[in-house]
Amino acid sequence: MSAAALSRREQVGRFLEQNHLRAWIAWRPDELLMLSGYFPSWGASLLIYFAEAEPVLLVPLLEPLDHIPKGLRVERYPWGDLKCADPYSVLVSNLGDELAKASVRAEQVGMNPSSARISLPVNAAEQIPMAENFAGLLSAHSTACDSKALAGFADLYLRKTQEEIAAVKLANKVANIGVRAFFENLQPGIAEVEIAAAVESAIHRQIGPDGIFHSRGWAMVQSGPNSAEGGQFNRSTGRRLEDGDLVLLELATCVNGYWSDLSRTGAVGMLDASASQILAIAQEAQQTAVDAIRPGISAGEIDSLARDKIAARGFASFFTHHTGHHVGFRYHDPGFLIAPGVSATLEPGMIITIEPGLYVPERGCGARIEDDVLVTESGHEVLSRIAESPQTS
Amino acid sequence: MSAAALSRREQVGRFLEQNHLRAWIAWRPDELLMLSGYFPSWGASLLIYFAEAEPVLLVPLLEPLDHIPKGLRVERYPWGDLKCADPYSVLVSNLGDELAKASVRAEQVGMNPSSARISLPVNAAEQIPMAENFAGLLSAHSTACDSKALAGFADLYLRKTQEEIAAVKLANKVANIGVRAFFENLQPGIAEVEIAAAVESAIHRQIGPDGIFHSRGWAMVQSGPNSAEGGQFNRSTGRRLEDGDLVLLELATCVNGYWSDLSRTGAVGMLDASASQILAIAQEAQQTAVDAIRPGISAGEIDSLARDKIAARGFASFFTHHTGHHVGFRYHDPGFLIAPGVSATLEPGMIITIEPGLYVPERGCGARIEDDVLVTESGHEVLSRIAESPQTS
Repeated sequence: MSAAALSRREQVGRFLEQNHLRAWIAWRPDELLMLSGYFPSWGASLLIYFAEAEPVLLVPLLEPLDHIPKGLRVERYPWGDLKCADPYSVLVSNLGDELAKASVRAEQVGMNPSSARISLPVNAAEQIPMAENFAGLLSAHSTACDSKALAGFADLYLRKTQEEIAAVKLANKVANIGVRAFFENLQPGIAEVEIAAAVESAIHRQIGPDGIFHSRGWAMVQSGPNSAEGGQFNRSTGRRLEDGDLVLLELATCVNGYWSDLSRTGAVGMLDASASQILAIAQEAQQTAVDAIRPGISAGEIDSLARDKIAARGFASFFTHHTGHHVGFRYHDPGFLIAPGVSATLEPGMIITIEPGLYVPERGCGARIEDDVLVTESGHEVLSRIAESPQTS
Repeated sequence: MSAAALSRREQVGRFLEQNHLRAWIAWRPDELLMLSGYFPSWGASLLIYFAEAEPVLLVPLLEPLDHIPKGLRVERYPWGDLKCADPYSVLVSNLGDELAKASVRAEQVGMNPSSARISLPVNAAEQIPMAENFAGLLSAHSTACDSKALAGFADLYLRKTQEEIAAVKLANKVANIGVRAFFENLQPGIAEVEIAAAVESAIHRQIGPDGIFHSRGWAMVQSGPNSAEGGQFNRSTGRRLEDGDLVLLELATCVNGYWSDLSRTGAVGMLDASASQILAIAQEAQQTAVDAIRPGISAGEIDSLARDKIAARGFASFFTHHTGHHVGFRYHDPGFLIAPGVSATLEPGMIITIEPGLYVPERGCGARIEDDVLVTESGHEVLSRIAESPQTS
């Protein structure tokens, strides 16, 4: 049985057992989501994931309860109570009580103290409001965070379950509504930021039906000469599109906590032969890498397939970044990159981006195509191409 | 001379001297902005602020350089170079070299290790990508982070300079373009998320002219019975507006790194007497508190003025949160709250929100008005009300 066939609970249970842990304390939104399917609103929630008992979720008094998955015991703490001067102390005390009730000792409890690349909560305008010394307070209850355990925990992000794959598919379906708005707006005179705003607006408006309680896109649009910077950074400016421009869209989309990461490159009117060639090379390199995705192939081999195509056309030095990364619980999940020389191999249940690009300042243009690709038992499934998208028609 | 009249460099210099520090290492976007006016794109930049020399900014190879303020020495490190397996080690090594060149020792260097309520970089879809062990790596070069120094550093956020006040005014001017979109869209049949998307879109589109290279809004719209939850949390749903609804807008806006935090409550068609009263009480309480703002008054007194108005109308138990907080470098700046019993007093240069509200489930509605108010030498200036806004017409 492949790891992909294991339920999330089985995967986490195996991890805890291998690391001699009886509990894990999670506070990052991406960890909460991965361990329990719960996506926090304020970002001030804490999950105690027990090896031998049901998980306990400690949420602020102010947290909405209507999107908390079944099967979690929910306890509130007085974050949001004007009369409580220090709700985090109450939270840490409650945490201690829960661990004591379960007879779990600090040296049996793991935790990730890092906030690197932490995902945003529903309240996406602000990073999580945990107290200044919160990680320090928690550390009294968790002394088993060695580097082996942390690496094992990061490894849990890699193999998505069927439910998680469905959630990432939904994020990609919504992202493609934004992609359609991108292509519909490609016309001379419109500003990059106006397109970006239209894309984000189309995505935001999907809240409501289909169980979507959170939907937010971050679109970055680079046109004409600005697209030549697309391998260095992504942003939208006030530049207005002109006939013959290549236009690069970098699009991060979060739906109910699950992420899609896409890029598309479109054209305004007719491209000249020079820009046309750049776009064609990006498309060819990307499709070649996507076609090769299957269990057992190494990340380095996938990267080479894309990189060699671009090199064969004489543009090796203009593909300056990696070919891809894991995606789903974050805009960029942890785990191995799809990059030169990486020997780690693909497994069913992994979702990776494939995003080769080339950015050629002397031609005043750049192009990147990026899709999210699921590794299946027999090969792969591209999650991010929707039949009716203008891109693939 | 009041502290407000001190330049940023003078304020920081005084802080370093009082804490016997010769340098401060900053990596949070809000710290970089406050110390240098630089707002990072990727969020992987590091500033060394010396007491006796010009600041040095260490930025990724991939960082755009066109919005870095003059007067900073900029050095790149190989984040984004495929051939560099560990750019953070290079960064930390470069940091060590800079400190050594200046003959500054680790025990003379301060740093804030916390990422609580960290502001988002230009690349707002993701929290900053510093390595998992980055704070640990930095700590080798900074051993002077005692709680007194950290409190003193947080205090630096409170007194804005003239340049910073102008930047927060610009953020509020842009926010009000979103506020106008909010009022223009208040009509039966439109969904909360559709209004939120229109507000964010109006704000996003301001990139381009007036030196605005970054402009992003986060709008949360709660209508009718949902507005009664506005004191607990803010979010937008698919609910469609109906005649007689109160509609609450919570709006965070970031322009070039500087923040506005606003709330408005509007009406769809004619309100009944019950909802009308709720709105009038919120307006009266807010205006009373705003009118009293001047140097020397305590935060607790301001809070009481708003709270007592609401209590006098019989709704004391429905105003469940504080009256305000500092704002400008973050959605919520550090520092004392405008809350019951807080004895800290207002000083010129402080910018605070005034945001009393009442949320009455049994009436199926809630209301909050929130403005950003600058404390001046002689009283105050409301930064967030624009003459042509429908709100004030």
